[in-house]
Amino acid sequence: MSETYVHGYHAREGERLQDQAGTLVDLLHSDTAYPGGSLVLEAGCGVGAQTVTLAQRSSDARFTSIDVSADSIAEARRRTDAAGVTNVEFRQGDIFALPFGPGSFDHVFVCFVLEHLSRPVEALVILDGLLKPGGTITVIEGDHGSAYFHPDSAAANAAIGCQVELQRRAGGNSLIGRELYPLMAEAGLDDVSVDARMVYVDASRPDLVDGFTRKTFTAMIEGVREPAIAAGLIEPKSFDDGVRDLHRTTEADGVFCYTFFKGVATKRRRAGASFQEVASA
Amino acid sequence: MSETYVHGYHAREGERLQDQAGTLVDLLHSDTAYPGGSLVLEAGCGVGAQTVTLAQRSSDARFTSIDVSADSIAEARRRTDAAGVTNVEFRQGDIFALPFGPGSFDHVFVCFVLEHLSRPVEALVILDGLLKPGGTITVIEGDHGSAYFHPDSAAANAAIGCQVELQRRAGGNSLIGRELYPLMAEAGLDDVSVDARMVYVDASRPDLVDGFTRKTFTAMIEGVREPAIAAGLIEPKSFDDGVRDLHRTTEADGVFCYTFFKGVATKRRRAGASFQEVASA
Repeated sequence: MSETYVHGYHAREGERLQDQAGTLVDLLHSDTAYPGGSLVLEAGCGVGAQTVTLAQRSSDARFTSIDVSADSIAEARRRTDAAGVTNVEFRQGDIFALPFGPGSFDHVFVCFVLEHLSRPVEALVILDGLLKPGGTITVIEGDHGSAYFHPDSAAANAAIGCQVELQRRAGGNSLIGRELYPLMAEAGLDDVSVDARMVYVDASRPDLVDGFTRKTFTAMIEGVREPAIAAGLIEPKSFDDGVRDLHRTTEADGVFCYTFFKGVATKRRRAGASFQEVASA
Repeated sequence: MSETYVHGYHAREGERLQDQAGTLVDLLHSDTAYPGGSLVLEAGCGVGAQTVTLAQRSSDARFTSIDVSADSIAEARRRTDAAGVTNVEFRQGDIFALPFGPGSFDHVFVCFVLEHLSRPVEALVILDGLLKPGGTITVIEGDHGSAYFHPDSAAANAAIGCQVELQRRAGGNSLIGRELYPLMAEAGLDDVSVDARMVYVDASRPDLVDGFTRKTFTAMIEGVREPAIAAGLIEPKSFDDGVRDLHRTTEADGVFCYTFFKGVATKRRRAGASFQEVASA
């Protein structure tokens, strides 16, 4: 991933991603489990926010988790070690220049990665090429344009818009969730199925108020304050008003909505498959 | 409901609501069934878009379906008769002036009604007063601000904004779905629980592309073309561009998202309840 990241590297961001992973585990992972013995590529593991969950939920599968950042991998390794996870091998690598041959993996898992890439379809084509016939590729992305809330606030939407614009300038797409199906289809993946995983938060769900609205989404927006102001996208007061209004949605009469999208494709066994592919299927 | 409606009365609207009801039946109704012998008030049945489903799913319950419009009731009766439904009694009436005493009903069902009311909390208080202790009130609403799509389009959002503004000028609220929990809480309803029912539409779901994106949501927006232009909210070309872009989301690489909200509250048996209430519970 030779791309610039808007988030993912700093210590506070690491905490945020950990909080997010903890709150959203069931929503995002409940239907992902790989058979014993299967070899799974986690492409773009970052600081390992999903890695422990992935590996624990498929404890008899073997994971190869790659990321372009050595620092992120060091943090991810620290986390998996702390959790006693032993079925993950980490390697530093770029999705666009991976040291794996065709059909190297039974399954591929990609979470919160395509949003950072200027060529997401190309990444999907490359990852699909690493799959054995019959294998699956699972893709999870958010969509910051799916965020809406009560009380509504133009200032909060402007602050969110700063994150979207910074991500866009860095070559990424914070609105990619809604595009998952057409992107996977354009990449030529087989039997694509996408569904929406909405997070609905009201005062009757205090864990989500704190874990998602406050510590995940609002913290992420707060994290772009300095770059947004430095880029001249917004005045400090306007940004701070927006963050204040996002916090306002965590009060007793507030509501917050956000949606993740999860897509799965299953690589078909093709008539023209090589003997090696057929034999290994 | 002595309120002005933005939609609900015209023949084409009737068709739209019927299409909507057909496509969304499972999403909205799958968890609503009333015990045999219970007396259920459907408040604001309109042209009966939900009535046949409601009555068929609880065939041993008895429904009283009211609406402020005699024309709508005539259409609703035609529909239930055509479906062979015999457990619904229709009455013309205004939610704010109903001819029923306290505790008249075991359950209350209100769908796509609060969005039209300038005093939704007052309506909920009145309906709650008609409930016996232990009874439930179920409320379903959409939220037009929950609509987002691919390709994104400022023109489409402007056309949707016209519907929202017209509804607001008529005293209603097209963004009410996200507010359901705080409104039900403010009305003092007991044990309020709200969840989100998202409609996610991509090309792999052709029934929803046609039944929801095209014939429900886009048709509804198309339906406000004349009043929006007459009110000076938008130029004809801009509106038509927006509608064109909504149709664009029904193509093979398009995606459309919308969310309904469903809330249920259960009336508590209170320590200070009258002997009559306790006896009838």
